[in-house]
Amino acid sequence: MSLPIIDETHDPARTSWVAGADGHPHFPVQNLPYGIFSDSDGRPRPGVAIGDRILDLQAVAALLPDAIVPTLSGSTLNALFALPAADRRTLRRRLSALLVDPTNRPAVAPALLPASACTLHLPMAIGDYTDFYVGIHHANNVGRQFRPDNPLLPNYKWVPIGYHGRASSIRPSGVPVVRPRGQRKPPDAEVPSYGASERLDYELELGVWIGPGNRLGETIPIGAAADHIAGFCLLNDWSARDFQAWEYQPLGPFLAKNFHTSVSPWVVTAEALAPFRTAQPPRPDGDPQPLPHLWDDADQAGGALALELEVLLQSAAMRDAGMAPVTLSRGPATNMYWTVAQIVAHHASNGCDLRPGDLLGTGTISAPTRDGFGSLLEISRGGTDPIELPSGEMRRFLADGDAVTLRATARAPGRVAIGFGECTATVLPARA
Amino acid sequence: MSLPIIDETHDPARTSWVAGADGHPHFPVQNLPYGIFSDSDGRPRPGVAIGDRILDLQAVAALLPDAIVPTLSGSTLNALFALPAADRRTLRRRLSALLVDPTNRPAVAPALLPASACTLHLPMAIGDYTDFYVGIHHANNVGRQFRPDNPLLPNYKWVPIGYHGRASSIRPSGVPVVRPRGQRKPPDAEVPSYGASERLDYELELGVWIGPGNRLGETIPIGAAADHIAGFCLLNDWSARDFQAWEYQPLGPFLAKNFHTSVSPWVVTAEALAPFRTAQPPRPDGDPQPLPHLWDDADQAGGALALELEVLLQSAAMRDAGMAPVTLSRGPATNMYWTVAQIVAHHASNGCDLRPGDLLGTGTISAPTRDGFGSLLEISRGGTDPIELPSGEMRRFLADGDAVTLRATARAPGRVAIGFGECTATVLPARA
Repeated sequence: MSLPIIDETHDPARTSWVAGADGHPHFPVQNLPYGIFSDSDGRPRPGVAIGDRILDLQAVAALLPDAIVPTLSGSTLNALFALPAADRRTLRRRLSALLVDPTNRPAVAPALLPASACTLHLPMAIGDYTDFYVGIHHANNVGRQFRPDNPLLPNYKWVPIGYHGRASSIRPSGVPVVRPRGQRKPPDAEVPSYGASERLDYELELGVWIGPGNRLGETIPIGAAADHIAGFCLLNDWSARDFQAWEYQPLGPFLAKNFHTSVSPWVVTAEALAPFRTAQPPRPDGDPQPLPHLWDDADQAGGALALELEVLLQSAAMRDAGMAPVTLSRGPATNMYWTVAQIVAHHASNGCDLRPGDLLGTGTISAPTRDGFGSLLEISRGGTDPIELPSGEMRRFLADGDAVTLRATARAPGRVAIGFGECTATVLPARA
Repeated sequence: MSLPIIDETHDPARTSWVAGADGHPHFPVQNLPYGIFSDSDGRPRPGVAIGDRILDLQAVAALLPDAIVPTLSGSTLNALFALPAADRRTLRRRLSALLVDPTNRPAVAPALLPASACTLHLPMAIGDYTDFYVGIHHANNVGRQFRPDNPLLPNYKWVPIGYHGRASSIRPSGVPVVRPRGQRKPPDAEVPSYGASERLDYELELGVWIGPGNRLGETIPIGAAADHIAGFCLLNDWSARDFQAWEYQPLGPFLAKNFHTSVSPWVVTAEALAPFRTAQPPRPDGDPQPLPHLWDDADQAGGALALELEVLLQSAAMRDAGMAPVTLSRGPATNMYWTVAQIVAHHASNGCDLRPGDLLGTGTISAPTRDGFGSLLEISRGGTDPIELPSGEMRRFLADGDAVTLRATARAPGRVAIGFGECTATVLPARA
């Protein structure tokens, strides 16, 4: 397993000449995430976040490695992430040097734009989106609600369970989510009906952006998986629980999920996260040893990420009253039963081709206790145990006007913390 | 419901000056399907099948309606199918006139290429692929095997059940399918193992190509669904039944299906199929009336298709012995519990956006009796009742070297029959 390595770009002593970058909660010079932005001219193009600025990569192309420049000419990052990991590391080291060494300031500063004046777009043209189910506490919590006798099915500890999601309805942070209409049959109803979801929920997930990928019929051995894990984002898998309960058998969730998925727009690279790699928690005693094609000692030793995940909610009333968003949950990303390398190796283990820019969701990542549950379905115990917001409002599921924000911060001793930026969206009322 | 109308292009008296077109089993001048082909210069571009020839649309652009020509400049048909149905009808009428009226021969004949010398590609860049489950006999047959007590779940007659499939692994007819490796746990095994599928199967489906589509958050009312159903193909949903049984709960099929999907390369348009529209069979007594957003009288009266579907198999031994492929099943496409308009309206009913070039599969279309079952899982009753091939070989599931061919023919009294061409692929051994 060739995990990304720690190099000079991660040095905590490194500071940037860009005002506000040092100490920035998300984007110090140790992060350097990629995204697609547009400014007043409306042309989407690649950029790098540094503090509160965006570095326009096309504007500094002359300063970047010749072999990489052609991948930066379009309106998506697919070509960049199709490059081998070594090339992306070369680009990262160059960008870090440009933003650290003040002699570059005259050449680089004109290419810095204020992020507040830019629009962020989806970073990739997403060919396929797959959502997994590796948050074991979530799987247990939800399984108990949908199948009280049988929360974790026999395959769960052998197979990284996943299913295909909808690529067309993925939107970047900031795009509001329209409450969906759909078919549902409450337990006490004789027949189903069609109407606005009464159990709209969020799901806290990590998104994984795929790099080079594999050809149809070939596999990605787990020892090579890291070469294909290009970067990460936050992902909100909006879910209509009433539709889900009625439709999901036997072929899985469909309209309950595919009306909207939100992602944070910055791709935090695997290279940026190298210092935050940590050991996968050991499997509980009695759990089976995964099959050899899903097991790699190096991945177990360093394939998990020391990320703190957080969900915040701000109702319309809270916004109107000037009240800050309230934290609904907080917990570590290590609550995943399978590592990202394991889900990549599994996905390609039958020869299914992964392509650059494909998106994988981890599934909801819940901590073992209620203060770390990653969905309202879990927090409100299926809607039976509402929570009270600081405004005095009660929530079983989301109300119109609610804004949900996901955050992630990577922390490790002796390292500069880096953040993912935000994944946020406000719920709009159902359309007539 | 504005179903495509019958016009002069469907006139059975119409003949073409192209040699071999009249009487062609698939592509007489009444069909005119679109595809993407390349010849010796290797450049994929749009064409129309006429008899054993392909009309190069770029080569006759000067003879086509000005407003449509720009949609024909690329290597996919997405832009053409994004046009309103009225524009596609205009193009069809023009193409029909060019190929019927012999005065056009001098201008058009140089743009005709022998199909045998061309390669056919995927007709669309497929943004999303969704597979449905509307073949009710198949749902019953398979349901009995996976859930003996509960073959048809309570939602089946209310919801056109569907799930997201994998777009990356869709290939045109002719590309061999590699037997996948994967994880399976036979009932008598204590633990699962990873290896080549021992229960590789085909599934006979129709594919539906989406036209203009809808914007996120908007719906497609069933009365407007026909405007978004651009065309049809054959679809083979290759399936590894051993992987499927082990992985599919609770989120549906995943690696059992996403290793390869085959489609016939010609898009048979909704306009070409207008004379073959027929009534949807009435729902059996006692079945519920669908909810209003899934019901349209005009669709029920004419939204089904008079298509005969056929599956053929030729083993390697049969091929070596010069034996013709054997028909495994034959049956009508009317064995669908939901119409295509119903599945389109359902898919968009929550605001999920459908995009031009998206692909929907109907799910396996089986007739009520074994001679019309659309998969080996059904024909061999889960592998317990093998069939004998003309070579004397036995089949429970597919063997390496087997070639599976799907065919569809539209027939109606007083009409010239049209065909879909073939969807064929040969099984290659699993890779080491």
